[in-house]
Amino acid sequence: MEYTDPTTTGSTIPSSSSSLAPSLPTAVQRPCAACKILRRRCTDRCVLAPYFPPTEPFNFIIAHRVFGASNIIKSVQDLPESRRADAVSSMIYEANVRMCDPVYGCAGAISQLHKQLCDLQTELAATQAELAIVQCQQQQLNESVIFLDGSNSASAWESHWN
Amino acid sequence: MEYTDPTTTGSTIPSSSSSLAPSLPTAVQRPCAACKILRRRCTDRCVLAPYFPPTEPFNFIIAHRVFGASNIIKSVQDLPESRRADAVSSMIYEANVRMCDPVYGCAGAISQLHKQLCDLQTELAATQAELAIVQCQQQQLNESVIFLDGSNSASAWESHWN
Repeated sequence: MEYTDPTTTGSTIPSSSSSLAPSLPTAVQRPCAACKILRRRCTDRCVLAPYFPPTEPFNFIIAHRVFGASNIIKSVQDLPESRRADAVSSMIYEANVRMCDPVYGCAGAISQLHKQLCDLQTELAATQAELAIVQCQQQQLNESVIFLDGSNSASAWESHWN
Repeated sequence: MEYTDPTTTGSTIPSSSSSLAPSLPTAVQRPCAACKILRRRCTDRCVLAPYFPPTEPFNFIIAHRVFGASNIIKSVQDLPESRRADAVSSMIYEANVRMCDPVYGCAGAISQLHKQLCDLQTELAATQAELAIVQCQQQQLNESVIFLDGSNSASAWESHWN
């Protein structure tokens, strides 16, 4: 569990200043958007700070409204650091979609895309079938041209010698 | 606000049994999945009961893990009754996708579908272009066949009379 609530952690740290004791989280000058909105002290160990900079408060407001801060923190903590930025981005995206469409959210978008995909597959199959027919007809026409061209040459040859 | 917490509502209701006083929520025999998991008394006024029957506890467990019970309740309450079932279904769907893909969730599915759609559109455009070319070639071949067929008839006519 990497996330530590800075408002409570201090009281659990032993007062002896042994060099082996874990260092206390240091408060940052400019709190992240999450800590500012949740009215918490933001520290250098804040698990949300890298993904919710103070310059973009709306991202956290929307993600918090849809998923809740504790669920966002839990999701982030359950992932390796290399995947966290993508996870937060996808949660912000989903939250935005849910705000725009509170009934269907991303599920609605997925359903619409599936329908479009299905329509396109039908159209592609029909076009491919039409192409196959036209290519078959072209093959037959080619054979007719070769035959007629050959007959023409033969007739010309015949009329020349008769 | 239709949802009332049955554990606290009782204390706020006036004790006088006036006919104008709102009736107390009645506890149900079989609590819904949400109330059972949240260890709350389920009543006939439970806003989640119609969408989380006791027979399907996993739907609530997953939706609660991703969105949180309070956010689900808020989302449901903000919608007219006719849209609530769809909203809960879409939240259960999204929560399931997020559990399967904790990094990208539905956003990942949408991105994949967009890519498939784009690939299909490219394939359809290429097939349509190929069809247009083949149809043009077929037109030219048709004209050649008419011309050669005509010449053949003329040659046959000529050789017959000469």
